[in-house]
Amino acid sequence: MSAVSDTAPLRLGIAGLGTVGIGVVKIVQRHADLLAARAGRPVEITAITARDRTKNRDADLSSYAWEDDAVTLAKRDDIDVFVELMGGHEGPAKDATEAALKAGKDVVTANKALLAHHGQALAELAESLGRTIRYEAAVAGGIPVIKTLTEGLAGNGIRRVMGVMNGTCNYILTRMEDAGLPYDTVFEEARALGYLEADPNLDVGGIDAGHKLAILAAIAFGTQVAFDDVTLEGIGRISIDDIRRAGDMGYKIKLLGVAQMTGRGLEQRMTPCLVPATSPLGQLTGGTNMTVLEGDSVGQIVLRGAGAGEGPTASAVMGDVMDLARGLRLPVFGQPADKLEAPTPAVTAIPAPYYLRLQLSDKPGALAKVATVLGEAGVSISRMRQYGHADTSAPVLIVTHKTTRDAVDAAIDALPATRVVEGEPIAIRIEEV
Amino acid sequence: MSAVSDTAPLRLGIAGLGTVGIGVVKIVQRHADLLAARAGRPVEITAITARDRTKNRDADLSSYAWEDDAVTLAKRDDIDVFVELMGGHEGPAKDATEAALKAGKDVVTANKALLAHHGQALAELAESLGRTIRYEAAVAGGIPVIKTLTEGLAGNGIRRVMGVMNGTCNYILTRMEDAGLPYDTVFEEARALGYLEADPNLDVGGIDAGHKLAILAAIAFGTQVAFDDVTLEGIGRISIDDIRRAGDMGYKIKLLGVAQMTGRGLEQRMTPCLVPATSPLGQLTGGTNMTVLEGDSVGQIVLRGAGAGEGPTASAVMGDVMDLARGLRLPVFGQPADKLEAPTPAVTAIPAPYYLRLQLSDKPGALAKVATVLGEAGVSISRMRQYGHADTSAPVLIVTHKTTRDAVDAAIDALPATRVVEGEPIAIRIEEV
Repeated sequence: MSAVSDTAPLRLGIAGLGTVGIGVVKIVQRHADLLAARAGRPVEITAITARDRTKNRDADLSSYAWEDDAVTLAKRDDIDVFVELMGGHEGPAKDATEAALKAGKDVVTANKALLAHHGQALAELAESLGRTIRYEAAVAGGIPVIKTLTEGLAGNGIRRVMGVMNGTCNYILTRMEDAGLPYDTVFEEARALGYLEADPNLDVGGIDAGHKLAILAAIAFGTQVAFDDVTLEGIGRISIDDIRRAGDMGYKIKLLGVAQMTGRGLEQRMTPCLVPATSPLGQLTGGTNMTVLEGDSVGQIVLRGAGAGEGPTASAVMGDVMDLARGLRLPVFGQPADKLEAPTPAVTAIPAPYYLRLQLSDKPGALAKVATVLGEAGVSISRMRQYGHADTSAPVLIVTHKTTRDAVDAAIDALPATRVVEGEPIAIRIEEV
Repeated sequence: MSAVSDTAPLRLGIAGLGTVGIGVVKIVQRHADLLAARAGRPVEITAITARDRTKNRDADLSSYAWEDDAVTLAKRDDIDVFVELMGGHEGPAKDATEAALKAGKDVVTANKALLAHHGQALAELAESLGRTIRYEAAVAGGIPVIKTLTEGLAGNGIRRVMGVMNGTCNYILTRMEDAGLPYDTVFEEARALGYLEADPNLDVGGIDAGHKLAILAAIAFGTQVAFDDVTLEGIGRISIDDIRRAGDMGYKIKLLGVAQMTGRGLEQRMTPCLVPATSPLGQLTGGTNMTVLEGDSVGQIVLRGAGAGEGPTASAVMGDVMDLARGLRLPVFGQPADKLEAPTPAVTAIPAPYYLRLQLSDKPGALAKVATVLGEAGVSISRMRQYGHADTSAPVLIVTHKTTRDAVDAAIDALPATRVVEGEPIAIRIEEV
């Protein structure tokens, strides 16, 4: 990058002109004066690229230079910041990001997959060249959670990071509850509405949200991004029955990300959990995102906002751009990347209460048999509710005292031998939020 | 300030060793390694001052130089940042802040009154000397709302800023509701618990929260701080009856700050408002704070956390200290202070629905008379609820369509002439959140 004075325009090259890219263009055009006043220098777009030049887009792009190729764009002499909004963690997005850094540009990206898979290598490359990569838009859409965690809470030892960070999953779970519809029906609705990624497993399998959690964990605990260590479980097995029964016991079911450093290593989970219905996480409905940051001084900070969409995501991209325009530069993950170590993954999650649902035969002593099996596995019962039955069996809900997933699984494995439990019991962790 | 390299220790001088000051000392001592790793340089305390040197404090202060006088501390050659935690908007806090800036130090402060009254002059002084003042701890305790508004949302035109920013008021209102106790009783409880300022009107009169709102408005709308323009109304007139009746209509009563730029000028209000019980603001209980930031791209961002206390406030102070240690420096209010203009205050708030409670005589046609008076004042009724009565009169609750406070007041002035309304009607704005 050519040396620029503090007041020279900051010049952007934007790769990817989908929803978010066009959102960024609109902000730069609409708020030129405001951005200049806040940054102390103009923010301009110099050049753009996208897959299809001829596509009709909802913005006037005629004054920007066009490139057919993102790598060529990334290396242009007349850009200071490469804004990567193409997506995908291999191929052009990665190639162009590397090319931009090597050409002396800073990078702003919304690409959670890229960072989850290659964040450590890209951060080391950027910092070895005196550049940085910013990615507020990659996690929780418009919520400035990266900035809050890296900067606002920089005086805290972070204890736990939690979040509902896939709006599509939260939409599906909320819709199932509100409309009393089964998962498959709502899944198809969401697909028809265009809420799902081309590969829906990225959403409902928890992968997209897992990417985000791994990024937050790296910042929070000062370790390398370790997406492969995230325990992933999607929402496909959640039934409308469980949502209702959990509700009866005072809980909501969320696809909840949790990262915490334990005595036995870093725990990272993106799995369905029960949370109290009256907690901020429990009250979250629809496509909104929420992150919960817990620090040893600050206590609990809850951030809530839109997790996707043109405006919110473009807002996050522009927050990063404005920081660069103002000369705010930090290491990619808040500490120098070459000093970060790979975390030791915790083999088992720390103990928690569990919600168990099982279908109990109408036989004398059935409940006592179940309690005995649970007790022998080391699982003790905190609360229980048995429903009336029209048939020969009835659902029983159990909230356990704190226990481990291993103990719960051992109990479930031992239940068939009692001959009083029908079908497969359901067990879901209750996260204490 | 002597020139320092990027890796030299950042040296703090702390004035004020109350709860927050000691909280900062504890963080610097406990997290020395973590702070150094994150900032790329050590953060150290060099010198301290407080009113009483001999007081027993919950921290080892023996390695810090002691000054009897804050101004002398502020000017010491061996500090880079003056941390002002004394409080008070005149006298030592102001004198020492000015002295620090003139001696080439940056300032970190938790003093909302100082900024609300002298923020513009202090910002101009700081920026003319190439220094800055940071004040995350002055607004909403541990919630990084200053950073979020100034930096994270820098790409947004801000539409509205709202907040419950006085934990004591929210505690009192929540406690009245939960325990069914009148205001005076809960006020005395809060005083006995040490929740109230020495001058309780700072809390319950809305002044403290008004200071915070004026600071947020200046950042949000790019104007000078204009605390004198804030419409202030405390919670002293809120009755347990209103809390209950509002609840019946689906609302909670909050001391709510609202700032928005309207076509007729800047509106700043810190007044009791009704908000939907199911909204994040409505769900906020106890001493917790919440700020709601609305931007033209990001939509609505909600931030929730502890609004006071040693840890949360010290966390905010340290966030500012860490920014300075990392070399992040911005104008005090996000734009150069000498370019900010005083805002034109909006004379009247933009229209909103209102909640009215009045006591109606048990006479034929009474309700029709009230409706006629309201209609003549231009106030139309959206919803109404009349309660059964054991006596000769009964409470009536009315939710109006959007109207102005002037119209509501005109209607209330005209009601006595109907001779069917007993006592003084209550009118509270319903904020659409």
